[in-house]
Amino acid sequence: MATLHEIEESTSDFLDFDKLAKIAQGAEPVLPVAVQDAESREMLLIAYVNREALRLSLAEKRAIFYSTSRREIWRKGETSGDMLELIEVRVNCEQNSLLFLVRRTNAGVCHTKDATGKTRHSCYYRKMTPQGLLEMLA
Amino acid sequence: MATLHEIEESTSDFLDFDKLAKIAQGAEPVLPVAVQDAESREMLLIAYVNREALRLSLAEKRAIFYSTSRREIWRKGETSGDMLELIEVRVNCEQNSLLFLVRRTNAGVCHTKDATGKTRHSCYYRKMTPQGLLEMLA
Repeated sequence: MATLHEIEESTSDFLDFDKLAKIAQGAEPVLPVAVQDAESREMLLIAYVNREALRLSLAEKRAIFYSTSRREIWRKGETSGDMLELIEVRVNCEQNSLLFLVRRTNAGVCHTKDATGKTRHSCYYRKMTPQGLLEMLA
Repeated sequence: MATLHEIEESTSDFLDFDKLAKIAQGAEPVLPVAVQDAESREMLLIAYVNREALRLSLAEKRAIFYSTSRREIWRKGETSGDMLELIEVRVNCEQNSLLFLVRRTNAGVCHTKDATGKTRHSCYYRKMTPQGLLEMLA
């Protein structure tokens, strides 16, 4: 089994196609949320909200997710300081996914760090080659 | 139960928190994919891929998803003509979601139409108010 470090830093494909099934086994119904920087329009991450996390996000005007691994409300940035101010919530046609437009209050978003030790500002720091390998983006 | 038209055109919250559980009941393991216009950087939709759809997308350089409702490969635009050329596939830190950067070959992306009868170019055409109602974006 791949280590977390391998999954996060290597160029091998360890795509976790089982994640959604694991989420569904949890008791909590959730929606996927695409999180986009409102200014640079960079896509930062996909997270999940349950009803309560969505309500709290709207009420507190910050991104509050539901951690599908820890199975609890996840106040983004509470420990890291990488909080996300919520500018707008958008809903798709079929009302089965959300888009959060956010403003970063700090440099980073991802929990990983780049080669210089800085927190990465997006979780999408690798691209996939036609051969299915991963490559770090410059 | 809400009709499809109500879900797509009304300002009422019919958020489908059961969708992911339904997906997980399907036999096919999938990853969520945020689909973003590579040029305008607009977020267009969230879709899903299984292994085969991802392989086909990379091979054919167009967005090919797995339809979790029809349970089959979904060659985006095959019937509508709203095909998406695939510019780049990005992978997140934990390798449990993807980002497709795409180029639209036509005006629209969504299967819904706006008030003037034109295909909407993004599925996120409504925003959520602090009270949890939906509002059409201008």
